[in-house]
Amino acid sequence: MPTLPHTQINAERLHTRIQELAQIGRIGETGVCRLALSKEDREGVELVKSWMEEAGMEAFIDPFANLVGVKRGSQPEAPVLMLGSHIDSQPYGGRYDGAIGVLGAIEVVQRLSEQGFSHAGDIEVVAFCDEEGCRFNKGLFGVRGMTGKLEADELDRADKNGLTRREALIQFGCDPAGFEGYSFREGRIGAFLELHIEQGPVLESLDEPIGIVTGISGPLWLTVELTGFAGHAGSVPMSMRHDALLGSAKIIVALNELVQRNPGAPTVGTVGSLAVFPDSRNIIPEKVSFTVDLRDIDLMRRNALEAELLSVIENVSMEHGLTYTIREDTNSEPRYCAEWIKETLREEAKEMGVTPPELMSGPFHDSLTMSYVCDYGMIFVRCLEGISHNPKEYASPNDITLGTELLYRAARRIAALEGGFPL
Amino acid sequence: MPTLPHTQINAERLHTRIQELAQIGRIGETGVCRLALSKEDREGVELVKSWMEEAGMEAFIDPFANLVGVKRGSQPEAPVLMLGSHIDSQPYGGRYDGAIGVLGAIEVVQRLSEQGFSHAGDIEVVAFCDEEGCRFNKGLFGVRGMTGKLEADELDRADKNGLTRREALIQFGCDPAGFEGYSFREGRIGAFLELHIEQGPVLESLDEPIGIVTGISGPLWLTVELTGFAGHAGSVPMSMRHDALLGSAKIIVALNELVQRNPGAPTVGTVGSLAVFPDSRNIIPEKVSFTVDLRDIDLMRRNALEAELLSVIENVSMEHGLTYTIREDTNSEPRYCAEWIKETLREEAKEMGVTPPELMSGPFHDSLTMSYVCDYGMIFVRCLEGISHNPKEYASPNDITLGTELLYRAARRIAALEGGFPL
Repeated sequence: MPTLPHTQINAERLHTRIQELAQIGRIGETGVCRLALSKEDREGVELVKSWMEEAGMEAFIDPFANLVGVKRGSQPEAPVLMLGSHIDSQPYGGRYDGAIGVLGAIEVVQRLSEQGFSHAGDIEVVAFCDEEGCRFNKGLFGVRGMTGKLEADELDRADKNGLTRREALIQFGCDPAGFEGYSFREGRIGAFLELHIEQGPVLESLDEPIGIVTGISGPLWLTVELTGFAGHAGSVPMSMRHDALLGSAKIIVALNELVQRNPGAPTVGTVGSLAVFPDSRNIIPEKVSFTVDLRDIDLMRRNALEAELLSVIENVSMEHGLTYTIREDTNSEPRYCAEWIKETLREEAKEMGVTPPELMSGPFHDSLTMSYVCDYGMIFVRCLEGISHNPKEYASPNDITLGTELLYRAARRIAALEGGFPL
Repeated sequence: MPTLPHTQINAERLHTRIQELAQIGRIGETGVCRLALSKEDREGVELVKSWMEEAGMEAFIDPFANLVGVKRGSQPEAPVLMLGSHIDSQPYGGRYDGAIGVLGAIEVVQRLSEQGFSHAGDIEVVAFCDEEGCRFNKGLFGVRGMTGKLEADELDRADKNGLTRREALIQFGCDPAGFEGYSFREGRIGAFLELHIEQGPVLESLDEPIGIVTGISGPLWLTVELTGFAGHAGSVPMSMRHDALLGSAKIIVALNELVQRNPGAPTVGTVGSLAVFPDSRNIIPEKVSFTVDLRDIDLMRRNALEAELLSVIENVSMEHGLTYTIREDTNSEPRYCAEWIKETLREEAKEMGVTPPELMSGPFHDSLTMSYVCDYGMIFVRCLEGISHNPKEYASPNDITLGTELLYRAARRIAALEGGFPL
């Protein structure tokens, strides 16, 4: 990585804000706990709102608890350029996840304001409410609300203290009754840009500070339950066993082989959670339940792998005399970044003297939901050892500056497009 | 299985007692919860004590809460023939485990008394206290107490309500202070015979009602902990992962292959308990802890398998960049039944017109501890589908009768031996 090129943005102001926001809900030296709709979240929103106003934006909180800042353009009817991310955190999270995308976007707009930059459509910066989803066990709430994609009964989901999202929204100062009259106007947003830490180790392994995202590979989430027959670990001969954990182990090994068969592909497959019943050291496992997380930017390849996995589960169950059930918990399709935005990012990066690698995003982001209502692009910033959702999460100031500078350049160029966006 | 041969024992009396004892601590139609040193256990001991007296024995509860019945012989100094098992149960147990060994032994002695059978050494019947070990998490208490094999601080072990074994013994009516003066006299017991349900499916699969036990294969118990590195299931490429669950799965599969390599051997290997950290569907498992239970009647073969397993753990850890620890929780050596007792059982069975198969016992029994102070022999009774430690546990009256008849014949022959036991 060469030394940092000359930047237009005010890096010092950006990093001061990142550190200041990190004090709200701080845990330990570097951690953050700023759960969606909590007191700390509200405090964070107030602080960020004040920075939006400092940056020359009108700011308000919408009914879905999204914080929205608007820099007015000359043509109120022209498509909006939206920038943003989220400032809520995991319960044991870091200071960069989401926050750099919101504060970076404010810095972009503030710099444009200072430069007297004029543009047709509005530029909006959004800190979306509850991207993480850890409190009510369903994320991307604010962005789904804003784009008209909430599901029935979503306000009735309760957190672990039994408080519903409806109640939490009211405590936060929002009026869920306002949802009723709300409808998203198709075509209102022309493009969405999001800056985010990678939350993975790819950029670090390539020794690259920033990357251009090609798309978000939605996961397939399955829950597999195998049922065999319990028995005393000392008295049932191996040939007479129906061991649900042995069957599960074979499936876990096979999944790994399937996913790695094409070494060039970005396919990932994970069994992250597993439970054994009765879970006693001298009883043959009768029942094992485990999760499967399968992701690929290529949906056809992912579907083919899923079919192969199902046949492995069938064969292993037959071999060991097990029965099984498979529940599909989530089935998201990959969502690709707009080619014209990626090209814009490539060209602007080149002018900065950097050549960011292109990579897919395994994790979800607010962009995933935005992809259904407009074109989108994402910039990734390298993060230490790929660690995220952990107080150890770290991205260097220089890398964040570089990512924000690219965001600034791309936003400026897109906002200046004559004749609107290439929809 | 041919029709039941003519039997000496009073089968009706035996089965009436089995059903009567099963009412104490009964759960549901067929289950039993008679935890060691509980109120139900005491009630059971009182009932069984009354049957010992009915059978012509003097009966008492020793300081370790063992119920002992003595049928006096003509020579007080001659070695004792001891018969017995236990009447405590698992929390969600059945009515046959242990109970048939105690009630069968009482029936044997009662029949001998009725026949005016005379013998040199005493015949003792024992219902050992707390064979199961589920209340204080350490079993074979009574038999280890009687044979002088308790460990330090054993009285301080607490149950899940915080009550110590010392307190439970006092509540039961015993005086742990009596332990101090107690010492086991080596050579006092000449032989020990135990009748027990198989707790496994071998006899059923062979269509045989009873079996002669060749030995108890003590288990090797290990706890293996693998540590890798957590990461987002969507963003860490497969080639960069250190997945502790994938490593564990490979070890589980390999253990099964190792153990089954010699299809004729009775070797068994089981991973019964496994826990994943952080156990989240979209996080790569950082830490997995699992148990290994390895048993074989051939200690050298078991040791060789253990060495191969350790090398598998080492290799898998290397391959996946994991660290590991292995804790040895238990390392019992196999204990073989006395050849002369097995031969006695074979001959007596032949006279009954049956040819019981010979099989090893995977589970522990009171016999395991007895094996360190005298010769021992065991008779197994077929049990339905190998189910035990469960209310579904079932052994048919005919099978129990057949096993008890063999116990009667063997005991009568051994007690009649001129010149004592073939030590």
